[in-house]
Amino acid sequence: MPTNSQSRDVFYVSDGTAITCETLGHVVLGQFQFDVNEKTFPFVESEDKLSDLLKEISNSYKNKGNKPLVFFSIVIPELKKKLLDAPAHCYDVLEDIVKKVKNDIQIEPKPKLQRSRSVSKDSKSYFDRINAIEYTLAHDDGIKLTNLNDADIILLGVSRSGKTPTSLYMAMQFGLRVVNYPYIQEDMSSLKLLKEFEVHRHKLFGLTILPERLTEIRENRLAGSKYADIEQCISEIEKVEALFRREAIPYINTSSLSVEEISARILERSGLRRRLL
Amino acid sequence: MPTNSQSRDVFYVSDGTAITCETLGHVVLGQFQFDVNEKTFPFVESEDKLSDLLKEISNSYKNKGNKPLVFFSIVIPELKKKLLDAPAHCYDVLEDIVKKVKNDIQIEPKPKLQRSRSVSKDSKSYFDRINAIEYTLAHDDGIKLTNLNDADIILLGVSRSGKTPTSLYMAMQFGLRVVNYPYIQEDMSSLKLLKEFEVHRHKLFGLTILPERLTEIRENRLAGSKYADIEQCISEIEKVEALFRREAIPYINTSSLSVEEISARILERSGLRRRLL
Repeated sequence: MPTNSQSRDVFYVSDGTAITCETLGHVVLGQFQFDVNEKTFPFVESEDKLSDLLKEISNSYKNKGNKPLVFFSIVIPELKKKLLDAPAHCYDVLEDIVKKVKNDIQIEPKPKLQRSRSVSKDSKSYFDRINAIEYTLAHDDGIKLTNLNDADIILLGVSRSGKTPTSLYMAMQFGLRVVNYPYIQEDMSSLKLLKEFEVHRHKLFGLTILPERLTEIRENRLAGSKYADIEQCISEIEKVEALFRREAIPYINTSSLSVEEISARILERSGLRRRLL
Repeated sequence: MPTNSQSRDVFYVSDGTAITCETLGHVVLGQFQFDVNEKTFPFVESEDKLSDLLKEISNSYKNKGNKPLVFFSIVIPELKKKLLDAPAHCYDVLEDIVKKVKNDIQIEPKPKLQRSRSVSKDSKSYFDRINAIEYTLAHDDGIKLTNLNDADIILLGVSRSGKTPTSLYMAMQFGLRVVNYPYIQEDMSSLKLLKEFEVHRHKLFGLTILPERLTEIRENRLAGSKYADIEQCISEIEKVEALFRREAIPYINTSSLSVEEISARILERSGLRRRLL
């Protein structure tokens, strides 16, 4: 049996989407220094599906010589029992915390199949989310500057500073209506705040970025262009940051942040409340 | 002291974005039958920020007469200790599982500040994600039908069957390049597969929806329109479903599914691998 302690197979298993298992498993594994080979098994609600998984677990154990890790959430007792009998290290991502909550608040839990954000459960939050996505798409990249009264936040920044992914993430995850507006080369000579934004000053938020990082990102898009040139990047960033300072627009540097981190920091700084959907 | 066992204050607290705490806390609370009033405290990395939180916990306890629930992940020992001393039921979302993994695989964890999807950690997966979002935006709603070779999947369906949110979610969460194409009223008389899709049959996936649900969604958008009329919805759905069957395109009904569930089911059915970003 070959052994290789440097790498492990990891399975995320759920009777729902398995997104919770993935999210938690990822963060847990981030605290360890070994390579992982990940695979997700969602909607494991039947013996059939479980047996596909059990085969893979068994093969993994045979081939690797060590037990794979399984982050799981399964409600049906028979399926759970069979999974726990497999040659794997299994971690129920909910069980311990649900037990503790139950003991603390003395309310009996009703385990149910994992249905994150079920439509039927709450039609209003579904529409809030869909409407936020639609609004945000219509106001991406300065396409449209009308209906700004309905905006929750307006992001400003040079091209490729992270506005579009951040806007979409905030709409999708938090149900926020986001406008984003790019400052492009042609605007730069006498940069000032658009009239449309004057009455919405409290909604403005700036994104900036290190010139080296901006060059790298723009090279990825248009290699060798003036647009990606470091001098160009320096000049655009200087002018836009000067505008942010002059107009007292709060801003953050996105260079080393993920889309999740940028979004969370904007919400925090702007005092916007997350709409948990 | 007023008591109200029907409702609880819940805090999600992290030295990072707190997204993991929110995700897990949500699912845990979904198993209990009481109302929650939720608030998130991200980036709690200093005494200052902690003390804001401790004040809110203390107020909550005084006002409600029962301890709030705190789902947290904090690495800095002094901050964690102070939080645990607060009048709250505190649940470390990672601790137990990290300990178990450590015992099982005999590798020491290196606790680190929560940085989900850090850019610096992995520039490649950052670009994969950004490129997927960009591709998906450019191919939303049939805008563009070029470069289909680069598509991971092509979603088909009537207007408002869930294509756009699903496409964006799949791009954002799994780094997939998604094309979506709407069948609109005018196409319906002699519905057939577009030539552009012929060589990409293996990438096609259909979304359908119950007429009653479609009417509801379209009413939300254009109340009283022919577009939202139930007869119109029935007729469009019938024709598009007939096309799916005739062309052997796999499809799912999105009526009672969240965007997360639709995405997860499509991945499962199509055999596409999630790119965990």
